[in-house]
Amino acid sequence: MSLDLMRELAKQTDSKILLVVLDGVGGLPMSGSATELEAARTPNLDALAREAQVGQIEPVGPGITPGSGPGHLGLFGYDPVAFQVGRGALSAVGIGVRLRSGDVAVRGNFATLDSGRQIADRRAGRPSNAENERVVGLLREAIPEIDGTAVEIYTESEHRFVVVFRADGKALGARLSDVDPQATGVPPLEAKAEDSASERTAQLVNGFVRKAEQALRGEPQINGVLFRGYSGVPHFPSFAEIYRLRAACIASYPMYRGLAALVGMEVLPVEGEEDALPGKLSALQAHWDRYDFFYFHVKKTDSTGEDGDFSEKVHKIEAFDAMLPALRALRPDVLAVVGDHSTPSLLRAHSWHPVPLLIHSAYGRPDRAQRFTEEQALQGTLGLRRGVDLMPLLMANARKLDKFGA
Amino acid sequence: MSLDLMRELAKQTDSKILLVVLDGVGGLPMSGSATELEAARTPNLDALAREAQVGQIEPVGPGITPGSGPGHLGLFGYDPVAFQVGRGALSAVGIGVRLRSGDVAVRGNFATLDSGRQIADRRAGRPSNAENERVVGLLREAIPEIDGTAVEIYTESEHRFVVVFRADGKALGARLSDVDPQATGVPPLEAKAEDSASERTAQLVNGFVRKAEQALRGEPQINGVLFRGYSGVPHFPSFAEIYRLRAACIASYPMYRGLAALVGMEVLPVEGEEDALPGKLSALQAHWDRYDFFYFHVKKTDSTGEDGDFSEKVHKIEAFDAMLPALRALRPDVLAVVGDHSTPSLLRAHSWHPVPLLIHSAYGRPDRAQRFTEEQALQGTLGLRRGVDLMPLLMANARKLDKFGA
Repeated sequence: MSLDLMRELAKQTDSKILLVVLDGVGGLPMSGSATELEAARTPNLDALAREAQVGQIEPVGPGITPGSGPGHLGLFGYDPVAFQVGRGALSAVGIGVRLRSGDVAVRGNFATLDSGRQIADRRAGRPSNAENERVVGLLREAIPEIDGTAVEIYTESEHRFVVVFRADGKALGARLSDVDPQATGVPPLEAKAEDSASERTAQLVNGFVRKAEQALRGEPQINGVLFRGYSGVPHFPSFAEIYRLRAACIASYPMYRGLAALVGMEVLPVEGEEDALPGKLSALQAHWDRYDFFYFHVKKTDSTGEDGDFSEKVHKIEAFDAMLPALRALRPDVLAVVGDHSTPSLLRAHSWHPVPLLIHSAYGRPDRAQRFTEEQALQGTLGLRRGVDLMPLLMANARKLDKFGA
Repeated sequence: MSLDLMRELAKQTDSKILLVVLDGVGGLPMSGSATELEAARTPNLDALAREAQVGQIEPVGPGITPGSGPGHLGLFGYDPVAFQVGRGALSAVGIGVRLRSGDVAVRGNFATLDSGRQIADRRAGRPSNAENERVVGLLREAIPEIDGTAVEIYTESEHRFVVVFRADGKALGARLSDVDPQATGVPPLEAKAEDSASERTAQLVNGFVRKAEQALRGEPQINGVLFRGYSGVPHFPSFAEIYRLRAACIASYPMYRGLAALVGMEVLPVEGEEDALPGKLSALQAHWDRYDFFYFHVKKTDSTGEDGDFSEKVHKIEAFDAMLPALRALRPDVLAVVGDHSTPSLLRAHSWHPVPLLIHSAYGRPDRAQRFTEEQALQGTLGLRRGVDLMPLLMANARKLDKFGA
């Protein structure tokens, strides 16, 4: 449904919604006949599925494989085709950078180049965050500005970093081609402007690549940079404005935190390394009274799928299952579990397949589903839904929507 | 999803898609409790259904009974409501005329005029098709072109004929008033342009009327022409442009060949009479290496339904089933079987009921369907889809779509 309709019908109440996003949780059979969710031992999810309504979410549309941004925006109720956000802006906002109109944020990967400047590893062996920070320190020293344009460089995580080019008077365009060829054995590409407003940006990007390679010449592993996804700043009507929700985000990874901030959620501090499930649970418990909507993100179900590691993805699903009773103990009025897209280990990538959805509330119609799996989701009362249909369903189950019309 | 999104995400790959359209295949129980598909013995379709994903297609929308044109356009990804093909153009396409963007097709009636140029009979006594063809021959000789614009004249049937004015560089408008006053005892009307783009078309139409009356001056019965219903061809962005597909059509009937040509498919020659399954198979095998998308049309499943001949429709389904192993032997990366609409023998007509859909690829989620039937389609992972959702699903299963967003 449209955001306008939500804006018209939404009302503030005391009920609480907990939306758990198991990133990329949908899968496919790999060696046997079971998907990751089917192979996992998930007694708590199973019990919840029996009490809840289940169905499927198609995040963007039939056949469309969503990036994490569009996948999440759909779940939050923003049509991902109408609200397109680049990865660079998401990453920058996610690490607390305040972007201004005209700035351009770019997502970078640290890479390993061979002696002939061919890409040997697009992720430079996935360095630690500490190693990333050390290299970012070198680059900050080497590249404070390019031809008078201020340059800011930030660690994201592992091999990922973010560069912000600050507009000095004149807005920088963000329509230019990637430096990252998404392949090894070839050199980084030259960024090319796709409109005249982006010509200056292309010079800055190409200048950055040259200067970075110079500065990192002596490094054994991180000696190159790849750019992909340039973006300016989008405007989103906030969760408070549309849904009258005091919304909080509990996520570790910068991109998801950034996305939540863009739609006006409070981004809560989370203690601990990486996916940090215990830290997330503590954050949730500590802030439970202060918000009426929580977006709770679990990342590793996606990254294990992207690694093609079926059994590790199964373990990450089981790890979440073990934590589920603690979430339920908070007694949310509405508890939803869903993915932002599928990431089958078989494909080692995001995919277009729908993801299972579960909504638990006092007002669900019973269905036959016995587990939270792709196949069982077909038995559910919720049917096959678009991503943007989720929020209205959560709001309704939380009794936060007025009747439409007299 | 929108064609724009396809255009943005589609990429050329080596994978091959084979789309089989069993025209009007969906049915209803007639005397017993089984539909035509349920009554048919289809061991090969059954086996395929067990390995594939199944679901249902609603070609245009709920409750809407599609003509063959809209049904097919939906399957090809063109919203049949947005891309309406007018009567003149459909008539032309239906008799196998290839229309191009900018051309105008006009539906004509042969008429009898009296000595004072008043209309005596608007249908010239409903001449035979042979008589129609004889007169069309006279007109072709007399009016090969008008002021440099190529004119093509075709028999439709009885008193009906079709004229195509070919755009010579500049598109011809199709907004002009009728020549047919829909009354007798009055003269034919002068066509008047309703916008500036149609002024040239009005000159052509009025010129045609004059020249035709001249050429038919000695004729006792058919000595005048009336026009009603002008249509341009909506511009169809081509399969190559939208999907980056080299697409081929394998169909015997003129209308389907015409539709395929409209969307930029290569229309392959097919040997044999009528539905000609062996000829179609040979054409497919002979051209397999040269294209990456094949539209393979089977007509008799529809015409037997329109005849109300349940058991003959069952036989036609079985005939296709017998040929299926030969199609599978080509090892398409994606093999889809679907109808363009239902044609229940019970109704002797097209109907609004969804049609079963089957998609076989390496990336399907298992489901419980054991056969390719209306009822088993309900068990499928694909759900109930609009016609326009098919192409994105086929493209995704063929791994021909990039990820949307970061």
